[in-house]
Amino acid sequence: MLNKDTQLCISLSGRPSNIGTRFHNYLYQKLALDFIYKAFSTDDIEHAIKGVRALQIRGCSVSMPFKESCIPFIDTLSDSVKAIDSVNTIVNDKGHLTAYNTDYIAVKDLIDLNFKDKQQRVLIQGSGGMAKAVIAAFRDSGFRDVVIAARNQQQGQALADKYHYRWQSTPEGVTADILVNVTPIGMSGGAEQDQLAFSEPAIAAATFVFDVVAFPAETPLIQRARQLNKTVVTGAEVIALQALEQFALYTGVRPDHALMLEASAWSRA
Amino acid sequence: MLNKDTQLCISLSGRPSNIGTRFHNYLYQKLALDFIYKAFSTDDIEHAIKGVRALQIRGCSVSMPFKESCIPFIDTLSDSVKAIDSVNTIVNDKGHLTAYNTDYIAVKDLIDLNFKDKQQRVLIQGSGGMAKAVIAAFRDSGFRDVVIAARNQQQGQALADKYHYRWQSTPEGVTADILVNVTPIGMSGGAEQDQLAFSEPAIAAATFVFDVVAFPAETPLIQRARQLNKTVVTGAEVIALQALEQFALYTGVRPDHALMLEASAWSRA
Repeated sequence: MLNKDTQLCISLSGRPSNIGTRFHNYLYQKLALDFIYKAFSTDDIEHAIKGVRALQIRGCSVSMPFKESCIPFIDTLSDSVKAIDSVNTIVNDKGHLTAYNTDYIAVKDLIDLNFKDKQQRVLIQGSGGMAKAVIAAFRDSGFRDVVIAARNQQQGQALADKYHYRWQSTPEGVTADILVNVTPIGMSGGAEQDQLAFSEPAIAAATFVFDVVAFPAETPLIQRARQLNKTVVTGAEVIALQALEQFALYTGVRPDHALMLEASAWSRA
Repeated sequence: MLNKDTQLCISLSGRPSNIGTRFHNYLYQKLALDFIYKAFSTDDIEHAIKGVRALQIRGCSVSMPFKESCIPFIDTLSDSVKAIDSVNTIVNDKGHLTAYNTDYIAVKDLIDLNFKDKQQRVLIQGSGGMAKAVIAAFRDSGFRDVVIAARNQQQGQALADKYHYRWQSTPEGVTADILVNVTPIGMSGGAEQDQLAFSEPAIAAATFVFDVVAFPAETPLIQRARQLNKTVVTGAEVIALQALEQFALYTGVRPDHALMLEASAWSRA
């Protein structure tokens, strides 16, 4: 039962979903942590963040459209935020707010875990917010030979300039060891849900395939890569790891992998 | 189970207790309302209140030391707040904050219900925040012949001046139809817990005895008044009614009396 010492964690987003609320509360209950979590929206990000501080709310997850606009109201930006100028996690330590980006942290951890050879050629497709996290993580992990393929020239060129990589409008003509998809291609319900994010020859020539699309985890790209015996990293792994990092930042507790999968399944049920 | 649409009500006080949290959550559960309630403290009342607005927190109960200091951050002050310049309840209607004082509302309702003859003489003992609510409620119910007895001359005189009543330092020498105690005399755990708030002759001469002390409800004053067949109003009635008013303001639902007693008993268990 809720009591005066129960710690509150919240999320702030333009259009709240139930996923975070279900995920965190499931884990609090299983781990007997005296926390509750609830999704919120706001039309005043400044006072929402100042309210998190003043009300001693322990943690605040941040989604679109507040990932950048919350930054002026934070006390300390962690390296993960400095890398991509984007926040998805705020921790309140007795009135001092520290911001993190656990998407970046999770992607970087998965890169360091899976892709040991920094000399390998990388082809990243996409130029949105998550693409920025992926590109920065490859840069910070020491990869030099990276091509960014993005239809949106302005965003693609800006990302390439910022991280000192090359941009081109399509993946065509690039042979890479590591293929990374950060576009909606293959995403359930999207216009391109049945399409392959990279061409057959590109997949055949690669060693690793990393698809950030999480719904479904088994995108056409991942399925084809598995058939060709490529080593794959899925968007489901990114989501699970970033949620684990966030949960650990709020509570100090790191649930084991089986419990994370259980909570993740429950949150989407 | 908590979800994104669950409405949050909170309290703000210097030293949170579990009573409000238990009381409101008990009723939410019994009435199947999609609400949660939790006590908070703050060292920044301005941004706590602005945070209530920005985070779309539905209701905020206010206790010491914030009952007056929250006023500058409210959009609309109800008559109950204007009467005593003190807030204990804030309702957030889509970003518009209206403040109420349900102590005043409850006391005034009990006066109007129990004391029909406005010509009767009233003797009120006490000069704290709750005494102010009681004095204002008698004034607003049309009572003219009221004496305020208070050891603290400064506060007592100020209250008498504000509401156009008379002040004296002790209850001695006043014969009244309605005796009202708003001091800690008779309160459990206090230095004067075994004492009568008014003298035997004063009680004998009165028709009504109203003791705002709620713990215990059966103070020495109330017990003695019952023995003498006086009509009594207890602090337990004030607390139950003010909590009901607050609950109704937050949720739009008025629990019945039996359920209120059940919730009240649970909240103190």
